[in-house]
Amino acid sequence: MKISIIGAGLIGGSMALKLKEKGIASFIYGIDNNKQHIDEALELKIIDAGVDLEQGVKNAELIILAIPVDAARKLLPGVLDLISDHQTVMDAGSTKAGIVHAVKDHPKRSRFVAFHPMWGTENNGPKSAIAESFAGKAGVICNKEESAEDALNLVEKIVNALDMHMIYMDAEDHDIHTAYISHISHITSYALANTVLEKEREEETIFQLASSGFSSTVRLAKSHPEMWVPIFKQNKENVLDVLNEHITQLRKFKSALEKENYEYLEELITNANRIRGILR
Amino acid sequence: MKISIIGAGLIGGSMALKLKEKGIASFIYGIDNNKQHIDEALELKIIDAGVDLEQGVKNAELIILAIPVDAARKLLPGVLDLISDHQTVMDAGSTKAGIVHAVKDHPKRSRFVAFHPMWGTENNGPKSAIAESFAGKAGVICNKEESAEDALNLVEKIVNALDMHMIYMDAEDHDIHTAYISHISHITSYALANTVLEKEREEETIFQLASSGFSSTVRLAKSHPEMWVPIFKQNKENVLDVLNEHITQLRKFKSALEKENYEYLEELITNANRIRGILR
Repeated sequence: MKISIIGAGLIGGSMALKLKEKGIASFIYGIDNNKQHIDEALELKIIDAGVDLEQGVKNAELIILAIPVDAARKLLPGVLDLISDHQTVMDAGSTKAGIVHAVKDHPKRSRFVAFHPMWGTENNGPKSAIAESFAGKAGVICNKEESAEDALNLVEKIVNALDMHMIYMDAEDHDIHTAYISHISHITSYALANTVLEKEREEETIFQLASSGFSSTVRLAKSHPEMWVPIFKQNKENVLDVLNEHITQLRKFKSALEKENYEYLEELITNANRIRGILR
Repeated sequence: MKISIIGAGLIGGSMALKLKEKGIASFIYGIDNNKQHIDEALELKIIDAGVDLEQGVKNAELIILAIPVDAARKLLPGVLDLISDHQTVMDAGSTKAGIVHAVKDHPKRSRFVAFHPMWGTENNGPKSAIAESFAGKAGVICNKEESAEDALNLVEKIVNALDMHMIYMDAEDHDIHTAYISHISHITSYALANTVLEKEREEETIFQLASSGFSSTVRLAKSHPEMWVPIFKQNKENVLDVLNEHITQLRKFKSALEKENYEYLEELITNANRIRGILR
């Protein structure tokens, strides 16, 4: 099958590598405004040809949008305008309500499948792409009833080929859950990095002392604003809800310490330990 | 060399394994109030014999305290009372000012070396011990001028055997730096777990969706209160300073979102990205 990947970066590149490896993709077109990414993706054999948007959309059975969520939302209606009823479009964005809403009344809506692979790293660009990225992770398909059966089946085949476990979800629900599971972790990580950078002037000491705990907590703070500002923007209400709750929870720790109420502190920690039962 | 490990858990057990592997420890005595930990440590060949405190202190050239920081602070003076001038005591606690202060005027102060290996996991007990844990991590020795030269040399030999890179630091400075590098990460992680547990009632969904980013940010929330309440207690002032700054930083994200000021949001994220230059 010929596949076009719009956005030859971390996510698009990783999907391309795996779909080639599995023999699902016979030829991959890459579309990217960033010429350097196209060159790198060609060199790394992630894509077979770099083409413009129209050519990419016309030539492929499946078109995958793997660009920041604001760009995807803006681009998708035009992509649907260009395709026939035998082509399928899927995205890979971290927010789903916005993009689903943007094409709600589009005559080709049924050719689109809203998808979110629950994987990412703090890196970007085709050089960061890894074929095995998605294995064992959740692949979320949203509002499947709005997609045509053959389009849905094709995307399910792709999700299986990526070795992901498939979850079906309403787009609005997806955005609430990911606010908790993914978006807030990024905000706490950014804020933690800013805390350290603001107050801890001895950078060499940070680097020398940094423990594995710190590195793993702050790792997400390396993630790029081009990807994350649009996510926070599109999921603003949910993210604010969670952020407010998170600040409330932090204030409980502050209060326990200020009042030297160590029984309460222990209670807060014991409650947090319940996450052991959920994240094995 | 005969070594006694007080606290046959994650840290003590990991040190024991490595020191045996390197041929530094010829015999290891284990001292632990938890009978099950002694049995497990014997079975895993982490220790060679389980003994009581007095026996352990009398028989070993080096005594390692690897117990929660409040217990270590309380126990250390009594251990120093029991030893001769040919024996050395080191600890492995995450706060240093308190323990150093507790033995400041002890006649055997110079036989003690204050140590903190910058490694840990959310697990505990001898079953979690790993010989290679410390390799490449920072091993911090505090207030070395208060230790006798031969005692210091012995501990330096141990730190080298653990394959750690050695750092010397004032105990008060250590506690300020670790508030940033380690203690705050645990509080944000606990608070994040409590946020999710408070608001997200669909535990099965959390588990199914949890991405690697979430798991790594929230991993520390599995850490036990027996270890962490005493750390927060002993480093209360520094932790509160950092926690207040962290809440201030989070409020900036909240404000940027509430006011839909996405330029400011981008600025905050771009600033956080500077951590890339520090944590490679």
